[in-house]
Amino acid sequence: MKKFTLFTPGPAEVPPRVLKALSEPIIHHRSQDFREIFFEVREKLKKLFKTKQDVIVFASSGTGAMESAVVNFFCKGDKVIVVNGGKFGERWTQICKTYGLDVHEIKVEWGYAVEPDDVKKALEKNGNVKGVFIQGCETSTGVEHPVKDVAKIVREKRGDDTLFVVDGITAVGVFDVDMDGWGIDILLTGSQKALMLPPGLSMISASERALKFMEKSDLPKFYFNIKREMKAQREGETAYTPAISLIKGLRESLRMIIDEEGLDNVFARHRKLASILRNMVEGLGLKIFAKRPAPGLTTIEIDNAEEIRKKMRELGAWVAGGQDKLKGKIIRIAHMGYYNEGDMIYVGNVLKACLQN
Amino acid sequence: MKKFTLFTPGPAEVPPRVLKALSEPIIHHRSQDFREIFFEVREKLKKLFKTKQDVIVFASSGTGAMESAVVNFFCKGDKVIVVNGGKFGERWTQICKTYGLDVHEIKVEWGYAVEPDDVKKALEKNGNVKGVFIQGCETSTGVEHPVKDVAKIVREKRGDDTLFVVDGITAVGVFDVDMDGWGIDILLTGSQKALMLPPGLSMISASERALKFMEKSDLPKFYFNIKREMKAQREGETAYTPAISLIKGLRESLRMIIDEEGLDNVFARHRKLASILRNMVEGLGLKIFAKRPAPGLTTIEIDNAEEIRKKMRELGAWVAGGQDKLKGKIIRIAHMGYYNEGDMIYVGNVLKACLQN
Repeated sequence: MKKFTLFTPGPAEVPPRVLKALSEPIIHHRSQDFREIFFEVREKLKKLFKTKQDVIVFASSGTGAMESAVVNFFCKGDKVIVVNGGKFGERWTQICKTYGLDVHEIKVEWGYAVEPDDVKKALEKNGNVKGVFIQGCETSTGVEHPVKDVAKIVREKRGDDTLFVVDGITAVGVFDVDMDGWGIDILLTGSQKALMLPPGLSMISASERALKFMEKSDLPKFYFNIKREMKAQREGETAYTPAISLIKGLRESLRMIIDEEGLDNVFARHRKLASILRNMVEGLGLKIFAKRPAPGLTTIEIDNAEEIRKKMRELGAWVAGGQDKLKGKIIRIAHMGYYNEGDMIYVGNVLKACLQN
Repeated sequence: MKKFTLFTPGPAEVPPRVLKALSEPIIHHRSQDFREIFFEVREKLKKLFKTKQDVIVFASSGTGAMESAVVNFFCKGDKVIVVNGGKFGERWTQICKTYGLDVHEIKVEWGYAVEPDDVKKALEKNGNVKGVFIQGCETSTGVEHPVKDVAKIVREKRGDDTLFVVDGITAVGVFDVDMDGWGIDILLTGSQKALMLPPGLSMISASERALKFMEKSDLPKFYFNIKREMKAQREGETAYTPAISLIKGLRESLRMIIDEEGLDNVFARHRKLASILRNMVEGLGLKIFAKRPAPGLTTIEIDNAEEIRKKMRELGAWVAGGQDKLKGKIIRIAHMGYYNEGDMIYVGNVLKACLQN
């Protein structure tokens, strides 16, 4: 018998009613039926992102939206600063370099959050920086970067001359990321985390400031062309065929998050789940790896991490291991999306049982 | 009550058992369970594409695979020939131009197939052509291009110096497209046509010849980087998070196509459905728009096409209208994938009823 619960930082558990929406007969994407669904999704995504701007939906995984954040707003040779504190910070660097940007990295030791002051210094040192790239939560280490503080610095130091770009893949819908309020220029996420969907959708939004950059951008883009999508999506369509079933599922999960539980309550639940699990973990004598832990996942230092991870899987609790240089050194337990307190008691005690065996 | 059947050339009807697979609890993509599914999918995709090469799966709509066919194999400034006989031929031109290729179009009147001899002449006229781009079926006009004949010409004229690139989005799994046998270098398709899935997946395969071009390609790519995906997918993983639920659905539809009905029987069924419908249409005194009609859809000249299309929708038969300059002039009835003879009798008689009212 295979019975299991995913506690992995993507994909995360999908609620039965969302799974049900995915299995409804397919509808056509150029129809009033689809437009109604899509307009509802658009309005709720704006609430999720805390923005008045369009939130564009792509049929891709989150990395596609990361690529779109680069190719739509920058020019070849543009100087940018990347906060690199893990595997996904690295990904910003890789994408920026692929498209010929001049990348200056702020290397942050894995497990630590960036010091806002280091961003300030980097902006002072490097003249004419066009973009600052960061993760809301660095999923490989479980760290929450101080996005609000960094946003403030970028705005104060650079005004309208620099875009602040936030990968919110394990942040949007997990904890407060106030795009308009904090002055974030580009914010993006994926479907398989807090949005409680299978992977296959990504979403991105751009500030007025970013839209001005877009007009000047000279990097090539076709599938991930935001300008073209924006025009189509405002009409309730998409430039290319959308992932219809996932968008139907997205409507369902957004109704759960925005209308039913309420975004602030979702954030509070995530904080509570994190707190419950971390108390259990520390009670077991284990150390949290992240120095500034994000509410969406808990990273735990364990000597024989791979062994424990495998044992936990055998008991039905699917947690993730460390990536790259953290492989074998940590396990990662995600609790963003469709998780409750009972889940934390379960996974925490499975961990306990595996440590004792 | 809303009851309807899609006869649109994407999305097409999704069988209940595939819908069911989409609604199963999500599994993790870096696991033995996923690898088993993915390896089965990979083997069956090779049979579908009639190739020994890897067939790479992307989380994107078909246009994403079209972009990947350009950015992975060509260099800036490369001279290419595009067969442009409709909206999707145009798309090849747009993508190639976006990435700085030197595009020479063979303009084909909408509704007609390309004359293989025109490709021959274009190759003779233009020295050092690096690629020839075509559609297996031009979905906007319902025309089947003579892919086998064009492949022969490209090989005879250019040997290993030119890649022959086929958009098989409404061709692969609809009628015979023999990638290895005919000498096609790049073949791609999407999930929402013959593969009987919702949109959100695309697949692409490249010949040994194309893989040599790939080593020299200097166009930027990240999300659609085939080399990186090939390495990952050979191990049963993907470079970025895959659309897990759609891949589970894909396994189900490939089992239906490859194992149960058999590819040749699927092709024969499509030809039969086309023949039944076309006989009915001609019996109604209407003209088929495509001069060389593809087996996957029937395009019909109708003066008041939009009115008829809307009336048919009211009776539950969702057919498509014309695109761009064909808007209001034709309707398109698709019959690729999950359709049987009864469906043709139904849609043909709905058309008849709407013409008489």
